[in-house]
Amino acid sequence: MHLLNEVTASAPAKIILFGEHFVVYGEPAVVLAIDKRAYASVKMRSDSKIYINSADLEISGYFEKNGFIAERGGQNAELKLKPIKVAVQKVLERVRKSVGVNVEIRSSIPVAAGLGSSAAVVAAVAKASSHLLNMELSKENIFNITFESERLVHGTPSGIDPTITTYGGVLLFRKGKVFTRIDVKKDIPLIIGNTEAERSTGGLVSIVRQMQEKYPSIINPIIKAGGKIVFNAVNALENYDFTKLGELMNINHALLCAIGVSTAPLEKLVYAAREAGAYGAKLTGAGGGGCMIALSPPKRTKQVYEAIEKAGGKAFAVKKSDEGVKIED
Amino acid sequence: MHLLNEVTASAPAKIILFGEHFVVYGEPAVVLAIDKRAYASVKMRSDSKIYINSADLEISGYFEKNGFIAERGGQNAELKLKPIKVAVQKVLERVRKSVGVNVEIRSSIPVAAGLGSSAAVVAAVAKASSHLLNMELSKENIFNITFESERLVHGTPSGIDPTITTYGGVLLFRKGKVFTRIDVKKDIPLIIGNTEAERSTGGLVSIVRQMQEKYPSIINPIIKAGGKIVFNAVNALENYDFTKLGELMNINHALLCAIGVSTAPLEKLVYAAREAGAYGAKLTGAGGGGCMIALSPPKRTKQVYEAIEKAGGKAFAVKKSDEGVKIED
Repeated sequence: MHLLNEVTASAPAKIILFGEHFVVYGEPAVVLAIDKRAYASVKMRSDSKIYINSADLEISGYFEKNGFIAERGGQNAELKLKPIKVAVQKVLERVRKSVGVNVEIRSSIPVAAGLGSSAAVVAAVAKASSHLLNMELSKENIFNITFESERLVHGTPSGIDPTITTYGGVLLFRKGKVFTRIDVKKDIPLIIGNTEAERSTGGLVSIVRQMQEKYPSIINPIIKAGGKIVFNAVNALENYDFTKLGELMNINHALLCAIGVSTAPLEKLVYAAREAGAYGAKLTGAGGGGCMIALSPPKRTKQVYEAIEKAGGKAFAVKKSDEGVKIED
Repeated sequence: MHLLNEVTASAPAKIILFGEHFVVYGEPAVVLAIDKRAYASVKMRSDSKIYINSADLEISGYFEKNGFIAERGGQNAELKLKPIKVAVQKVLERVRKSVGVNVEIRSSIPVAAGLGSSAAVVAAVAKASSHLLNMELSKENIFNITFESERLVHGTPSGIDPTITTYGGVLLFRKGKVFTRIDVKKDIPLIIGNTEAERSTGGLVSIVRQMQEKYPSIINPIIKAGGKIVFNAVNALENYDFTKLGELMNINHALLCAIGVSTAPLEKLVYAAREAGAYGAKLTGAGGGGCMIALSPPKRTKQVYEAIEKAGGKAFAVKKSDEGVKIED
């Protein structure tokens, strides 16, 4: 058996184009992998420790039998690094090895911004670890390891993030980890505006649940309308009808406002993008902070970018990425 | 027959608390008369001319058999003064008199802001004119004269403005001029924020119609949710549940965003009011400019007022008014 010295894998970030929150209630969502990736490099150790170092987060430490020893980032580091350790353990269990590894994480994906940073890191680690140990896991296996590792630490996620980071492209996603690929051949040029206000997905999901329980006769038809947006959006995506996509993004954003997950800084970025000539703009992900996205005609990209920055957001242009989790050469 | 020298009447402005736009599609709306009024003073002339002077708008002129002669405001004055002239003519027709009158208008209601300024002026003129000519018209008659005078000039209004300015109070209004009174004994303290951007109700109604025709499967459930908001709001009004009213205002506002009638300046005022501690805030009327309203706890009124002003709005506090059109002593 030939063992590699060091293996690097990467996995993409994502944005939810349509259907966040409503997906919890059974409606479909459209999710898009983007060309921002997390990278994990893994190599064997001579002991049985799992050492993880996240350069960007400036946290690192050792997982051993007796617990965690922080190198940087204090005890907070353990919580953040734990899903990575769990993923490595799950890979080791599958190959029935009891070895130690060093894991180096590099990522340009903003954290706690709804872009799926955490799942991308875990998927890249699972892919690199298994490859290092000479075991080719299927995408379904990588997905399962990522999903389970995230679930242990973060509760019960929808499964959107592990799915899209594993498979890449554009997916029509439904609750219960059911998804189909949407065939989008041309690029979808988006500008992301990050409010840089961190938020908790779980907290926002429970705010919406409270609203739905208090006002079911109001919120249920809103959720239904959210589902119909996705239906129209798939059609618009397949026909590259960006005008329609923009209109649908605007309506979807307003429905997210209706269920209480937008904020003043998000609104500022959304309206700035629209006024600068975007086809449409909406918050993406859980809301309560995090990011918005704008779909812009190529001619207006610079104006939309600048408008988002001027309105207080951190802007960056992204493209659709068809590559899910993969080994880097 | 005793003829009075001069008669003054007044009629209130209004705000739509819930249901604007959706009322066009058969859902109910909640409308509230407020303590800002238009005043009309009418006296007999020795000739058959109808002279109208609006001090606030700085327009005035004479309607005669052969047409209109502007005194101030040029030919634009004719369009603005015409509903008033029509109302006077309709009163004269009823008393079968062919006399001339002088009409003086004073009003503190912002124009073209969705507060029903035009209908309040016309109702006050109809009331004052009929009283001057010793004829007591019923409220239904005043409503009909106001509705018809507005309709001739402005196309096909919903009838909300003539109804609420005639009857005052809080009304549950349905398309087809059907309304019932909602019994609200305590005050409803609101702060209005005027963006001072004038807009056309007709234009906005047709924007929404286009949306509804393009995306019926999305917009129809949104309209339905709008109706359910009103159902919940009537209950909250009767129980003085201001927390609930505020939440419902926020949801209603978002649904108005979904149908495309909000603007960046309106959003700015709405979020400023909410962040300053309002129970809730929403645009009121047709949108596209005009006004927003905030429901505020008494303790936070000053903060909400100041936040709206700081966000670029012209703020003023209003109260519910139970008095519709009436003669002033």
